[in-house]
Amino acid sequence: MASQTPSPQRQLHLNAFLMSTGHHEASWRLPESDPHAGSRVEHYQQLARTAERGKLDSIFFADSPVLFGEVGRRPAGKLEPTVLLTAIAGATKRIGLIATASTTYNEPFNLARRFASVDWVSGGRAGWNVVTTAGPDAARNFGVDDQPAHAVRYERAAEFIEVARKLWDSWQDDAILADKADGVWGDAEKIRTIDHEGRHFRVRGPLNVPRSPQGHPLIVQAGSSENGKELAARYADAVFTAHQTLADAQEFYRDLKARTAAAGRNPESIKILPGIVPVIGATEKQALELERELDRLIKPEYARIQLAKTLRVNPEDLPLDRQLPADLPSEDEIEGAKSRYTLIVQLARREQLTVRQLIGRLGGGRGHRTFTGTPVQVADAIQEWFDGGAADGFNIMPPVLPSGLDAFVDRVVPILQERGLFRTDYTGRTLRDHYGLARPGNQYADAGAAQLASIGAAF
Amino acid sequence: MASQTPSPQRQLHLNAFLMSTGHHEASWRLPESDPHAGSRVEHYQQLARTAERGKLDSIFFADSPVLFGEVGRRPAGKLEPTVLLTAIAGATKRIGLIATASTTYNEPFNLARRFASVDWVSGGRAGWNVVTTAGPDAARNFGVDDQPAHAVRYERAAEFIEVARKLWDSWQDDAILADKADGVWGDAEKIRTIDHEGRHFRVRGPLNVPRSPQGHPLIVQAGSSENGKELAARYADAVFTAHQTLADAQEFYRDLKARTAAAGRNPESIKILPGIVPVIGATEKQALELERELDRLIKPEYARIQLAKTLRVNPEDLPLDRQLPADLPSEDEIEGAKSRYTLIVQLARREQLTVRQLIGRLGGGRGHRTFTGTPVQVADAIQEWFDGGAADGFNIMPPVLPSGLDAFVDRVVPILQERGLFRTDYTGRTLRDHYGLARPGNQYADAGAAQLASIGAAF
Repeated sequence: MASQTPSPQRQLHLNAFLMSTGHHEASWRLPESDPHAGSRVEHYQQLARTAERGKLDSIFFADSPVLFGEVGRRPAGKLEPTVLLTAIAGATKRIGLIATASTTYNEPFNLARRFASVDWVSGGRAGWNVVTTAGPDAARNFGVDDQPAHAVRYERAAEFIEVARKLWDSWQDDAILADKADGVWGDAEKIRTIDHEGRHFRVRGPLNVPRSPQGHPLIVQAGSSENGKELAARYADAVFTAHQTLADAQEFYRDLKARTAAAGRNPESIKILPGIVPVIGATEKQALELERELDRLIKPEYARIQLAKTLRVNPEDLPLDRQLPADLPSEDEIEGAKSRYTLIVQLARREQLTVRQLIGRLGGGRGHRTFTGTPVQVADAIQEWFDGGAADGFNIMPPVLPSGLDAFVDRVVPILQERGLFRTDYTGRTLRDHYGLARPGNQYADAGAAQLASIGAAF
Repeated sequence: MASQTPSPQRQLHLNAFLMSTGHHEASWRLPESDPHAGSRVEHYQQLARTAERGKLDSIFFADSPVLFGEVGRRPAGKLEPTVLLTAIAGATKRIGLIATASTTYNEPFNLARRFASVDWVSGGRAGWNVVTTAGPDAARNFGVDDQPAHAVRYERAAEFIEVARKLWDSWQDDAILADKADGVWGDAEKIRTIDHEGRHFRVRGPLNVPRSPQGHPLIVQAGSSENGKELAARYADAVFTAHQTLADAQEFYRDLKARTAAAGRNPESIKILPGIVPVIGATEKQALELERELDRLIKPEYARIQLAKTLRVNPEDLPLDRQLPADLPSEDEIEGAKSRYTLIVQLARREQLTVRQLIGRLGGGRGHRTFTGTPVQVADAIQEWFDGGAADGFNIMPPVLPSGLDAFVDRVVPILQERGLFRTDYTGRTLRDHYGLARPGNQYADAGAAQLASIGAAF
């Protein structure tokens, strides 16, 4: 019998979710933290280089077109993510770059073009986290009194992605002839209008950017409501999600892979990455001390106001040392961030947390799983979910930046590499390469009747 | 009598208007040119470094959210300018970065935020060329069958700028307290909603980006219609304009400075930069040879179709070796790019050009002034207009890139420097510094009743 090559071990995918001084809301108060970090491109360039040193798949920025959070309480405001990621692209070579952008408050032509441009500038490292943007405050920055209904926002999001894909495909890969001798630059047969007419958008096209290195930038989705999961099953290449328990994460994983198959896609073509806030110490004791120090720095009175908004109750209905009231609204009554709402309520009920304790847990990870321990314990926690059918990888949310990312990259990643679970170097150049995802074909490539694009002309 | 310090000589401002392989439409056919340059960030980074070597004030990209021009004829499509300029910011240190963006097909919150972000990332080097975007083809990428009327577009543009300025001022410069000990990050009294309610926009604010290094990114305007001039007089820090003759440029200069004064502003606070396409040779003969070589590479049949669109006639009404027909529409009947239309018609009539000759002139500079000669002759041409009350500086439009910019920087700039007309090094760090313009005050800085910003909260 011939010797067999062992089948290659399934590999983790790791994304670093970056946020000014870290995910813990009091992180900015630590001596090491720069309270102006959110506006400083050098801060983020340094973090991205650290993530690249750890061979992570990507970095990621959340976003909403509104000033978010209490400015008195924690750093607010941030640079627009496509701008920030472009600035980071020049300071890095391989790490993937995922920016959040809203389908409710953008036009598909503008956004498809911007992501194609970031993909060009970064050599194929762009990803787009598609969000529908909950809440009336964002709406009021766009001449609307309140957000569109949840279902309408998701319907628009699906059509928005369809339009973006058509625009990304409106140039074939070989559309540029560059025939200097005959003076023919582009092949007008291979650059076509898309003539999209849908419920939410009418877009003629073509895009004014040639098809980008990845064909389509990576599509990421992070909403876990029913509508969110359906959108992910149809379109997402990667999903960021939040679970507190292995059982919940397994159930979500099974459900989303099944939905993806039902949508006619290979379940391996969607990568599921739960969030984890790793509070890392050389010893368990040191890790717990860091966690306690951070929680001690939270101001509970401010945090209670935020929690009350999320739960749609009055702050005075939430005494700090009592558990949540019994009569909270059901998820159906919530018009935005549905799954986050349910997660918070379930966490509080399951662990019988007082409001003060709940505030500590949320201040650390905003509903994501906080895991406090040594590097080996963090690696074990990651491996348990990865081997247990709960994750294709993780969305790493350091509680403090830069030190929390340094600790993860320098102390946890080597353990995962030793166990054969994570790459020791990049093998590809694009974000799709890192996630093991193919470059998409062009939906118009074999269309018989490509249309002549003789568009918008003036001297 | 005490010795007097000579009053410092008035200084030129020079902007490099960059465009893939150059402004001459046949430039891509030259052996030196990279026909894929338009998608290659390295190409533009190199050009920006050249402009910075020449101590130019800024570089600039035109833009429209539509595929522009015949793809068969010349390079089409381009990277989105705020993305491209951000990528250039990291490869340069001092040069200003001006991106065009449309007020008709963007939302003020998104665009104000993006320019503030570019200003942060570049350390105060961002500028925004405000355009209203003519033409039905762009409209059809945004669910609209035709462009809004000229006057409506300009009314929207003015309100758009007002909203952007309010958003840029919604954070006071000292809004971030960063008081770690007391756990107070921002001063809620110094971050306020703008509550704008106008004919075109309702925007609550505040912006979710702290006030940027320049306070307001530089505002540039480039339309020379009546509405365009009025908009410039009210809001522009710099104006790009197109004139074929000294007399026309003088008249425009006088008119716009007077309008600026009438709008209650110091006329020196607006810098007027006519375009010039410098075709440079070591000798006059070499310069003329380069011009002829470029014009020879234009394909007149394609160019005639473009000209016919611009003039709103059929291509067959424009025989190549005849002058323009007598019965063209008046400017009043033109809904977009009005001043460009008039300039083309006047140029053809004044110089009694055949359609073929007109196509050669337009292929070189699209209506801008082409000047062919030695470095000294180009410097003389620049000085004549500068000293003659026609310009505060120039918008340099190299016919071929990179060689045309190299020639200007290495051979013309030193002559201007020797004559004391142009800086030999940067004296400031921001784009406003280069143009000699003050950092704007904050319109809300002294408002008694700053509003508490307790905005959009969720965990």
